[in-house]
Amino acid sequence: MKTEKRWVISFLLITAIAITSLFWKNTNNLENDFLKTSNLNYADIAWLLTSSSFVLLMTPGLSFFYGGMVGKKNVISTMLQSFISLGVVSLLWVIVGFSISFGSSIGIEIDGITYGLFGNPFDFMFFDNVSTLPHKSIGSTIPFILFALFQMKFAVITPAIITGSFAERVRFISYLLFICLFTIFIYAPLCHMVWHPSGLLGAYFGIKDFAGGTVVHMSAGFAALAGVLVLGKRKDKEHIPTNIPFVLLGTGMLWFGWFGFNAGSAMAANSTAAMAFATTTIASASAMMTWIFFDRINGRKVSALGACIGAVVGLVVITPAAGFISIPKSIFFGFIAAIVSNLALNWKRLKKIDDTLDVFACHGVAGIMGMLLTALFAEGENASLLHGGWGVFSHHMIALFLVALFTFFGALILYKITNKIIPLRVSSNSESIGLDLSQHDEKL
Amino acid sequence: MKTEKRWVISFLLITAIAITSLFWKNTNNLENDFLKTSNLNYADIAWLLTSSSFVLLMTPGLSFFYGGMVGKKNVISTMLQSFISLGVVSLLWVIVGFSISFGSSIGIEIDGITYGLFGNPFDFMFFDNVSTLPHKSIGSTIPFILFALFQMKFAVITPAIITGSFAERVRFISYLLFICLFTIFIYAPLCHMVWHPSGLLGAYFGIKDFAGGTVVHMSAGFAALAGVLVLGKRKDKEHIPTNIPFVLLGTGMLWFGWFGFNAGSAMAANSTAAMAFATTTIASASAMMTWIFFDRINGRKVSALGACIGAVVGLVVITPAAGFISIPKSIFFGFIAAIVSNLALNWKRLKKIDDTLDVFACHGVAGIMGMLLTALFAEGENASLLHGGWGVFSHHMIALFLVALFTFFGALILYKITNKIIPLRVSSNSESIGLDLSQHDEKL
Amino acid sequence: MKTEKRWVISFLLITAIAITSLFWKNTNNLENDFLKTSNLNYADIAWLLTSSSFVLLMTPGLSFFYGGMVGKKNVISTMLQSFISLGVVSLLWVIVGFSISFGSSIGIEIDGITYGLFGNPFDFMFFDNVSTLPHKSIGSTIPFILFALFQMKFAVITPAIITGSFAERVRFISYLLFICLFTIFIYAPLCHMVWHPSGLLGAYFGIKDFAGGTVVHMSAGFAALAGVLVLGKRKDKEHIPTNIPFVLLGTGMLWFGWFGFNAGSAMAANSTAAMAFATTTIASASAMMTWIFFDRINGRKVSALGACIGAVVGLVVITPAAGFISIPKSIFFGFIAAIVSNLALNWKRLKKIDDTLDVFACHGVAGIMGMLLTALFAEGENASLLHGGWGVFSHHMIALFLVALFTFFGALILYKITNKIIPLRVSSNSESIGLDLSQHDEKL
Repeated sequence: MKTEKRWVISFLLITAIAITSLFWKNTNNLENDFLKTSNLNYADIAWLLTSSSFVLLMTPGLSFFYGGMVGKKNVISTMLQSFISLGVVSLLWVIVGFSISFGSSIGIEIDGITYGLFGNPFDFMFFDNVSTLPHKSIGSTIPFILFALFQMKFAVITPAIITGSFAERVRFISYLLFICLFTIFIYAPLCHMVWHPSGLLGAYFGIKDFAGGTVVHMSAGFAALAGVLVLGKRKDKEHIPTNIPFVLLGTGMLWFGWFGFNAGSAMAANSTAAMAFATTTIASASAMMTWIFFDRINGRKVSALGACIGAVVGLVVITPAAGFISIPKSIFFGFIAAIVSNLALNWKRLKKIDDTLDVFACHGVAGIMGMLLTALFAEGENASLLHGGWGVFSHHMIALFLVALFTFFGALILYKITNKIIPLRVSSNSESIGLDLSQHDEKL
Repeated sequence: MKTEKRWVISFLLITAIAITSLFWKNTNNLENDFLKTSNLNYADIAWLLTSSSFVLLMTPGLSFFYGGMVGKKNVISTMLQSFISLGVVSLLWVIVGFSISFGSSIGIEIDGITYGLFGNPFDFMFFDNVSTLPHKSIGSTIPFILFALFQMKFAVITPAIITGSFAERVRFISYLLFICLFTIFIYAPLCHMVWHPSGLLGAYFGIKDFAGGTVVHMSAGFAALAGVLVLGKRKDKEHIPTNIPFVLLGTGMLWFGWFGFNAGSAMAANSTAAMAFATTTIASASAMMTWIFFDRINGRKVSALGACIGAVVGLVVITPAAGFISIPKSIFFGFIAAIVSNLALNWKRLKKIDDTLDVFACHGVAGIMGMLLTALFAEGENASLLHGGWGVFSHHMIALFLVALFTFFGALILYKITNKIIPLRVSSNSESIGLDLSQHDEKL
Repeated sequence: MKTEKRWVISFLLITAIAITSLFWKNTNNLENDFLKTSNLNYADIAWLLTSSSFVLLMTPGLSFFYGGMVGKKNVISTMLQSFISLGVVSLLWVIVGFSISFGSSIGIEIDGITYGLFGNPFDFMFFDNVSTLPHKSIGSTIPFILFALFQMKFAVITPAIITGSFAERVRFISYLLFICLFTIFIYAPLCHMVWHPSGLLGAYFGIKDFAGGTVVHMSAGFAALAGVLVLGKRKDKEHIPTNIPFVLLGTGMLWFGWFGFNAGSAMAANSTAAMAFATTTIASASAMMTWIFFDRINGRKVSALGACIGAVVGLVVITPAAGFISIPKSIFFGFIAAIVSNLALNWKRLKKIDDTLDVFACHGVAGIMGMLLTALFAEGENASLLHGGWGVFSHHMIALFLVALFTFFGALILYKITNKIIPLRVSSNSESIGLDLSQHDEKL
């Protein structure tokens, strides 16, 4: 495939989408699934509008968190990789992503009940049936369009998280192709399985995931790991982080946005949202402090970088549990995650594979820890080991294992496919020059 | 006028304003225009408080969007020009701007009905009558003071948008004088004509402008064009953008803030707000992707700068239409705007006049496109060509033409007046040194 | 104390806290103090979730505001000092800080009534009794947990404000110790005395402090002053601000966040919140313009730095008054504060002590001015000189004097204690190298 051709195809594709959009007539053929406007709660709408905005800001936040850490020749490209997800995934979400995530379940039958593997891609294609009425069982007090938007921001940030692992060596157009495939074949089905009322993992295995421990963080973490294995190590791994203040800025934006992420996942301006807000900020505080002290007793200096990574690890670990646990537990969640992720990050074996910004050690490991701790401590009937016993717990563990397999091997296959179509790795020369100049003609 | 004198006058002016403020007794003589507190909707208040805050953040966002693009010797001055609008225009808004915008209509009589050209400047002077009661016909579920604040943030950002065109050569004090004149004689009357219930353009010509396609973007775009013609080209146009990450940060802040801008313009936490939120983010996504692909097939590299400009162009084009169109249409809006603005930006003729940061090509052209597409597609009775026919459409076109004339020639006259009082352009020497050092004694 | 040992103790401490948290069973033994869930107002919850998030963002905002101003070798360390407060103080707040602030009053009896000096530290230890029910007399329409979170963000930013005074020479671990002591022995008791319904300063002396003129700004200002006196001058005071755009970014984030700070302090999405929002943004605008004009007529150039400092001074001065005064008065508040703080900042006597970033001149002086002006102008029965007479006013003045004494000498003692345990000032060599490298092994 010649360079020009793939870009012409890209442009023709967006043109086709735009023209289709112009003539698309939204159907409303699922009226029975929706309630009346009288079911809308305006305070919930106010909060969900707000929290969706907060979550949008996380993607630029992530671009600074990652951008500040890479070497000087790759700052802009790394930032753009996060940023561009706001374009690609938002569009994909409207066209078919949301439909695969929350369309009526297509899946397997167990004991006469259908458990969804993915949603019907035609239900909400181009946001058909996605109107201002509330859905009967999903976010039933807010316009369904608002629910779709809130979820859109989650879909946007997930591929952006992955980018940290193969930063400094990935080809831009291949990356675009990969995140399209990832969103359609991994993110959206996983989202369906966990969060759709009849999804396999949520409804059958009963796993609890308040705001995306599996859907966002485990999936991004394992996709990152697979990506590193496919792309291989960088030619030159030596560099110091280019701009620590950018990392601090990104962390601040992420922390702020995470309140939308976690407290917004209550889907209402209610007490659960307040509790989720509390556990979120406290777990992050706890992990930040644990990280820097743990660094120090292991002979590293207390660093701003460490504080930032610690804070983010805390945010990750609390994500699946945010609305399900008591306040003091969140301190413990942050503490454990910081230590385990810190050990993973400094584990020589893992160092060898060259996950540029330690995405697996942070998002993957903290995501797993979060799911594990949630399966241990989540409150509510049959919610966890402590509140339901070993049967419940073992079900959750099986589910987690399935998620890990699905996301890791799923991503591996998608990378291989991408690689066949357009090589994922830039040329050796482009890598030496740095992606900023070689891919984008820009520099710091 | 000597250097010192004009600053002494400035200080005396702010002193006079402060002392007047101290002794001002707010009157309440328009009680019939207001409802009772029982009409307040607290969810709407929550969302409007939030969205007003979001819109405030757009001005610092713009300062980074522009600041990152200019040359190294003019970053701080460019940023300050945006930022200072938060000071100047906010005060002006309280004193008289809001009153000219939303005071009782003073205008022309057509068929026995008065259509406003501007509002009575005494109605809301120093926020007289602007209390916590809701207005009968303007934002009738929120305190009128909150409506005034939300609108204030729009007035603040509009002059800030203009600054991109004459960056790197404008004198700071002249700029301050100009934005005062602009706010009083162009922004506020235009705001009245479009958004006051009896304004000429809205009520008589029936144009639809959901969140500021005319008031904010066309007015800023044409004022930018006029400014460039008056100030002339820079001595040295060659430079690369100083700090692309700043542009990315600015774009992120603008995108985030735009949710307040557009979804807040529903004046309520309701379904319209949710729809406006959706069309906003999707148009932006569409324009971003279109821009980079269009760049690429035209021989330019995919760049972070292009992605950012594309995203902002998408936000501009959807602004007048945000609450009036279906979701898929917003993809089309973004697509068209990106191509037209991209062509304008790269059009040699326009390049010649040296609009430093292409304000006209982006805000002006995308603003016009937005109004045009809104006039074609807006839903509702007699809202557009498709929903009202050619009569409605031609009315809208006449109105747009009037807006273009008014804002372009109005701004031209105000620049000429400003130039007479204090030269708009800095000395040749100051320009060579760069405005950061010559105007502000600061440097990167 | 050897270097290692103090860090081992730190790590053991966080470990002990985490383990305690794991086994802590939250009690609910103060049921009579709480209302039912039917008292919750969901619009208020939406706004308080939002405004708590806004206030969180102020701390990263402050880190940029300060970080941009210091010398190149101390940017990261200065930023981290703000940032780390999100970790330390959040945890401390959960453990005991909130309880000392809002627990049942322990204090002195006057005329048979108990006026609190501090709260019972056991009432809300590890957030015992802090549930989703609303408290009877404190934020009675929102979950108590949400009130505790909103207040947490105030407690977090206060020590961060102090850091500007001793930037470029403080030892990181000593600073951590100090802010723990400060939060427990100064911030929390002061918070109790001012804001608890039976606190000494609020209930007995009747002082008005809407959003933290005493609790946050005076306390930080006087602690800053005391800190400078204990730590002494820097070896080398000469440097230009490293990154003015960071200062602009920080100011934007602070301004944005301050809407949560001040309008959120209405504890509801109501008219008071809207009024507080208005006075906040207008005072800031007024102070910004006054500052730059005042600078200019005093022979300094109009600078972005000046505009930023002016804006923040305006935000500080309006804080105690935000919900208590009419709109035009806020212009006057900003004007006066800008001039007085500007004079203080340029006052040679104060310059000598080397308050690195003029924390006392800005936060201290503007905080005092704010309280003074509030005591003059606040509306409401017996609220101020103008609305209550000299008796009321003199009571307020006594209270302010007590606050000044308490915070200055209190902080002085805590610095001395800290200094005994771990020296507050870094070694001369570390100072020369700069704290970024010597404390954190990081550099710009």
